[in-house]
Amino acid sequence: MDGEADAPRGGRRIAILLEYDGTAYCGSQYQENGPSIQSELEAAINNLTGEAVRAAFAGRTDAGVHALGQVSAFDTESKLTAAEFVHGVNHFLPHDIVVRAAVEAGQDFDPRRHARERMYRYRIENRGARLAIDRNRAWHVARPLDIDAMRRAAGRLQGAHDFAAFAAPYEGLTRRTLRRCEVSADGGRVEIEMAAEAFLPHQVRRTVGPLVEVGLGRITEEVLVSLLEAAVPASARPAAPARGLSLVSVTYDALDFGLGDGNG
Amino acid sequence: MDGEADAPRGGRRIAILLEYDGTAYCGSQYQENGPSIQSELEAAINNLTGEAVRAAFAGRTDAGVHALGQVSAFDTESKLTAAEFVHGVNHFLPHDIVVRAAVEAGQDFDPRRHARERMYRYRIENRGARLAIDRNRAWHVARPLDIDAMRRAAGRLQGAHDFAAFAAPYEGLTRRTLRRCEVSADGGRVEIEMAAEAFLPHQVRRTVGPLVEVGLGRITEEVLVSLLEAAVPASARPAAPARGLSLVSVTYDALDFGLGDGNG
Repeated sequence: MDGEADAPRGGRRIAILLEYDGTAYCGSQYQENGPSIQSELEAAINNLTGEAVRAAFAGRTDAGVHALGQVSAFDTESKLTAAEFVHGVNHFLPHDIVVRAAVEAGQDFDPRRHARERMYRYRIENRGARLAIDRNRAWHVARPLDIDAMRRAAGRLQGAHDFAAFAAPYEGLTRRTLRRCEVSADGGRVEIEMAAEAFLPHQVRRTVGPLVEVGLGRITEEVLVSLLEAAVPASARPAAPARGLSLVSVTYDALDFGLGDGNG
Repeated sequence: MDGEADAPRGGRRIAILLEYDGTAYCGSQYQENGPSIQSELEAAINNLTGEAVRAAFAGRTDAGVHALGQVSAFDTESKLTAAEFVHGVNHFLPHDIVVRAAVEAGQDFDPRRHARERMYRYRIENRGARLAIDRNRAWHVARPLDIDAMRRAAGRLQGAHDFAAFAAPYEGLTRRTLRRCEVSADGGRVEIEMAAEAFLPHQVRRTVGPLVEVGLGRITEEVLVSLLEAAVPASARPAAPARGLSLVSVTYDALDFGLGDGNG
């Protein structure tokens, strides 16, 4: 499970802040079945420096999931400055992936293990008609949602719990601390923000799905809490679709991209 | 200029509220050089009812311009209810166009001539790196914008003026009343909202472009006002790109789509 963080050692370690529209990709990590954010990024770096680098990521995102502030790191022998990496890599990246910033990180920096907090945002559009403009950015829920019920249920999930029910099957320990799980609504746009030091696989989508079940009146807040307490692996359903999910930011103690907008 | 409003007479006149992502289209109105919102809508209605209808629109949008609340009307002999039109037309429309609602309108309803107010929103992303996620929805301006200067300049444009300078060349009268021209900013996202009963051709984009020139310090607020007062046709430059522009809503005295979200 930890292999992806073991970037090869080289002269310098560069950390970059990535934004991408995940619609066209099979996920953040390299896969056989199609282009990934990793394969595109490594190819762009190779085009720039001639090096075959391996890029490590702060968090895995699935096919169709987006990122505003994914963090990646790679080693290079190149003499390019961090700013030159931003411009150079962006020149070779496709139009739906962009490096927002780069900094020189310490030789030991590990974007996954050193992350202190990950923040995800899930977007729902609650209206009758399907979506035209944001069809790849939000989950369309046609029946009216009870936002207050969702907000109360979300509050019950905050804190330290065994989240086995609200995740894909996972072999490791399933206790996590969900620092924030908040539902907001503005007209038909409903957003659910979740923050934790670390999440289980598919935890955000497998939390949003059951919260929407609460909002539709199909299960009660108490049923949701009983699923949490029973902690039967992967028993909370359904998973919300990937297209509504974005990795917003990853926070570190000693890494600052200097954008001043919460992304590092 | 008024020909597009003359929809053929039939049994009933249906008004519809349309949302579309304009990226793939040559504009709202029928054109020889590619698919338009009008051609897609008329084809979908034809697939549903078998009729060759002509759809009239509240406002022309150019290639790449989006709409959250465009209003269109057409005549039909069909016995379908308004709700059946929503579902049926959406079935045949491509995924980037959707009918949000439909109502039966009076036989004399003209979506263009009867509009009491049009509201447009122009979105800018002001940051160093190009856009990945919203690359087709916003204008990327890399150098920092002075939002206060833009806000002051926008305020000077409000009210009744001859807007000849801030529009494409136009043969008719060029005096209009700009009821609202407001600049807001949230982090790097800058939005300019403009509302009027009617706009001149390209007026929003030819206002946003010069406002950004003010924000970049290339021209002063006083220069902007002198352009307004001189009223030399099409002299205010540049036009902002189409992709940042959305027609948000069109308001009528006697037409309500019942969505309760400001769109009719």
